[in-house]
Amino acid sequence: MTYAWERRLGAVPCDRGEACFRVWAPRARRVAVRLRGEDHTLEDAGHGVHERLLPTSAGEDYWIVLDGTPLPDPCSRWQPAGIRGPSRVLDAREFDWSDHDWSGVPLEDLVLYELHVGAFTEEGTFGAVIPHLLGLRELGVTAIELMPVAEFPGQRGWGYDGVQISAAFSGYGGPRDLQRLIDAAHAARIGVVLDVVYNHVGASGVKAMEAFGPYFTDKHKTPWGKAINYDDEQCDPVREWMLQSAEGWVRDFHLDGLRLDAIHAIHDESARPILRELATRVHAVDPRALVIAESGLNDPKVIRPADVGGYGHDTQWADDFHHALRVLLTGERDGYYADFGLLRDLAKAYRRPFAHDGTYSAYRRRRFGAPAGDRAPAQFVVFCQNHDQVGNRALGDRLPVQVRALAAFCVLLSPFTPMLFMGEEYGEQAPFQFFTDHIDVEIARATREGRRHEFARFAAYAGSLPDPQASETFMRSKLTRARDPRVSALYAELLRVRRALPAGDADVAFDEAERWLRVRRGQWQLLCNFADAETLVPCADGQVVLATHPAAQPERDGVRLPALAGALMR
Amino acid sequence: MTYAWERRLGAVPCDRGEACFRVWAPRARRVAVRLRGEDHTLEDAGHGVHERLLPTSAGEDYWIVLDGTPLPDPCSRWQPAGIRGPSRVLDAREFDWSDHDWSGVPLEDLVLYELHVGAFTEEGTFGAVIPHLLGLRELGVTAIELMPVAEFPGQRGWGYDGVQISAAFSGYGGPRDLQRLIDAAHAARIGVVLDVVYNHVGASGVKAMEAFGPYFTDKHKTPWGKAINYDDEQCDPVREWMLQSAEGWVRDFHLDGLRLDAIHAIHDESARPILRELATRVHAVDPRALVIAESGLNDPKVIRPADVGGYGHDTQWADDFHHALRVLLTGERDGYYADFGLLRDLAKAYRRPFAHDGTYSAYRRRRFGAPAGDRAPAQFVVFCQNHDQVGNRALGDRLPVQVRALAAFCVLLSPFTPMLFMGEEYGEQAPFQFFTDHIDVEIARATREGRRHEFARFAAYAGSLPDPQASETFMRSKLTRARDPRVSALYAELLRVRRALPAGDADVAFDEAERWLRVRRGQWQLLCNFADAETLVPCADGQVVLATHPAAQPERDGVRLPALAGALMR
Repeated sequence: MTYAWERRLGAVPCDRGEACFRVWAPRARRVAVRLRGEDHTLEDAGHGVHERLLPTSAGEDYWIVLDGTPLPDPCSRWQPAGIRGPSRVLDAREFDWSDHDWSGVPLEDLVLYELHVGAFTEEGTFGAVIPHLLGLRELGVTAIELMPVAEFPGQRGWGYDGVQISAAFSGYGGPRDLQRLIDAAHAARIGVVLDVVYNHVGASGVKAMEAFGPYFTDKHKTPWGKAINYDDEQCDPVREWMLQSAEGWVRDFHLDGLRLDAIHAIHDESARPILRELATRVHAVDPRALVIAESGLNDPKVIRPADVGGYGHDTQWADDFHHALRVLLTGERDGYYADFGLLRDLAKAYRRPFAHDGTYSAYRRRRFGAPAGDRAPAQFVVFCQNHDQVGNRALGDRLPVQVRALAAFCVLLSPFTPMLFMGEEYGEQAPFQFFTDHIDVEIARATREGRRHEFARFAAYAGSLPDPQASETFMRSKLTRARDPRVSALYAELLRVRRALPAGDADVAFDEAERWLRVRRGQWQLLCNFADAETLVPCADGQVVLATHPAAQPERDGVRLPALAGALMR
Repeated sequence: MTYAWERRLGAVPCDRGEACFRVWAPRARRVAVRLRGEDHTLEDAGHGVHERLLPTSAGEDYWIVLDGTPLPDPCSRWQPAGIRGPSRVLDAREFDWSDHDWSGVPLEDLVLYELHVGAFTEEGTFGAVIPHLLGLRELGVTAIELMPVAEFPGQRGWGYDGVQISAAFSGYGGPRDLQRLIDAAHAARIGVVLDVVYNHVGASGVKAMEAFGPYFTDKHKTPWGKAINYDDEQCDPVREWMLQSAEGWVRDFHLDGLRLDAIHAIHDESARPILRELATRVHAVDPRALVIAESGLNDPKVIRPADVGGYGHDTQWADDFHHALRVLLTGERDGYYADFGLLRDLAKAYRRPFAHDGTYSAYRRRRFGAPAGDRAPAQFVVFCQNHDQVGNRALGDRLPVQVRALAAFCVLLSPFTPMLFMGEEYGEQAPFQFFTDHIDVEIARATREGRRHEFARFAAYAGSLPDPQASETFMRSKLTRARDPRVSALYAELLRVRRALPAGDADVAFDEAERWLRVRRGQWQLLCNFADAETLVPCADGQVVLATHPAAQPERDGVRLPALAGALMR
């Protein structure tokens, strides 16, 4: 049996100069579509769904009119005038794809590169990314990962306050330019992953959506606003709104994967977990499409297959690896970094990146996580920089220069799926700060104050904290592309040698006092010195294949490494 | 590694006239135990745990003194003077068990009999249950299931407002009499299951518990009060408080199973679901002990093994079977009964009792449940009466007399685990009403008004709604034991013939218009007429082995059954 809400929602063009408009709006008495100034009442299909075939063509603007009030379509694929403007009919089939021989990126080959479309180039558009694709491919990146592009308020922002979850941001060039970018990426043999936010919508969009129906629930909470209604009354059409969004991105934009933002804030206690359905539906559209969870749960069920009770996601971000590494490199102990600081933590994370696998977290004041030994190393995404770990610092500063080489060495030669953050591959010095352009005065004020409050404990920043709403904050975050050739060469070499390393578990040894760590991967050995002074890292005989510092020197019983250096032996 | 809170909490007698007192009280500055009027300060063992060996003996009263205030122990095993009195040291090992040759009740043989200790006999005590055990065993009951006995406020109550979750109710005779009852049951070859409430504690106990630590969390909600903190900060000692309670019931009282009240209100989003840990820990104490969930989730993961992502509970209540059956029998359509009413619903429930297995529930306004075809029929507990379905009606009235025989026929000959509610086996006419004896005036008032509010839509009851706090309401709910010999004979026969039926799936046919249903179980056929008039239920040739009505008459093409009758053919 098919329920009314299971048919395609939104404006779906068909072949006779018509589109089927289907709107879920149980709170409205009269539901119409406004086209060229004229309102066409839709027919009640039951369960709050209203639908009708209407003559229109791709590129035409429309409003959904609820009891006389025109509103943008929550299922819109195109918002040419922003979150409060009309929706526009998109015929995704019009794009002339040239990627017929593209076969996707197998998880084992995945090297991700996270980028923010607006800050990646001066133009800040989908189109402006294209000229950089070949260079990234040559470096060894196999997929770029776009920070969220769902239509969000204003002209700039990180994208996590998106409202129309299926509409590619008009400020970046809209859906047609996104198709062009992805087609060009595939021509350059590089995949594209999209960050999608299904745990909340930007506060600017809540009121309009609530006029349609119960998109939100008080049953659960999220840190960013009302929880989306995935398991309360009338949740099924809300689930479809999200599931069809995910399907549409993969089907109509040929995306190679979706990165699901903060799945720990997607609450569903029903017998059919929405996160499992999401993976099932995405894989049904394209079995090669990767479902990548950002999960703050340290729960292996996320990446286990459905037949053993998992959600069936392909891989997940593993923050613990970052934290274990970062705290060794920088000595920072704020917030969740407090749980880390020992070589032991990083050694454990090299086996499986859940450093917390049921152990006590002093930061959370409870035992956290569960063992993930049954999951393949590629099912964990690791990084030493990302938008959060850079951008959610008070000043958005990247890793200190002196530790970057060892950090990259540890990440890129790990058995896990590595991810770079735009610019790190050539030693970018520009910060990536938190920027917004909220169009609601109250939300803008709350965002500013929230930021100030968050960093209030750091007196040092009191005068220098960037104003998220200021356009300079955004401009300051753009890549300068000032290239350090030694860094570029190191990244190229690390990514090249990475491909030679065997898959499978790493075997780790370390010395807490001497601050060295040694990782065996088949015939290869990674040697790392986390001390502030040079040290001898003992190891079996071999040749130094690669070192982050020219002074790395093999000796009788090991390799003498300068402070904060790494060397690969074979 | 063992954390301080993982050691045995509460007062644990050892062998030298001493007991180890261990208290989790992170909110107190000074934690002491008062014995014979004297306070003994405990030693800080970290993580809010305080402990000390003190000279004492079993049967001695003690208080936990937090910063000078004496309070009962949340881990108490004995509250001789009620929820606000002192705790008493119990040495559970003192009881001289005689059940060495008792081997438990395999799930396949389980026939449950739910009883309320207070209402089951005039005396209303554990001891007074004993003389009835042999008769139940002879009838074919293999385990009695006691409604909750954890110390609750006042002298009478259903027990779901228990406070000291590990202390057997003093009003029933306390822990020693519970041991005597269970030992006597085992001597009578009958098992004992205990209903335990781990989703909330009675409001009367919240304040005292909060003086110890964060037993509760605002992260989740329950319909009955603050959610217990199973996944928020400092949840680990709270988890232990509950897990050790479950272990203690099985280890020290030789219980054959625990019935977990309303697990859908036990919220835990962590990577180590408390409901899985509970089953693991209980089975580790006694692999034969049955974990029986009351689950309102229709989620098969509850009864799937842990290695396929389940919670590993042995069996679960299946309300849908009751509802499907009841609505056919009585035509009631209030509340959740609205989703039922067709023969089709009961036919589906005979395959697996999740009538909602992902289908739309008009009552819940969403799709509900998931298929459970991989689970054995014995993993579902079915019934036509229970404390809820009787007692949570406005007047606590049992099933109408004229439908009881067919109801029992359907339940007891089903492939599922059947449960009787005390008295139904002989045609008890007394109601089972909602009764309380709250000692807090405000809680008593709120309970009364809540009950009035709940049934306000039934104008008919306005004058006759029982007052839950009145002792007459309790007295009216006691079994009269006025026996209808025909009913007794039918139950005995049904339970006898049930043992001959083969295990395995049932094959069901029905006619919605004629209102008959036929269930094939191997060589046997159950024929049911739900119509108000006699009808011919078509079936293959065979002998009528048993009928609920003497007028059941085999004919050429089937069996002619009077209204609301059932017949078993072979």
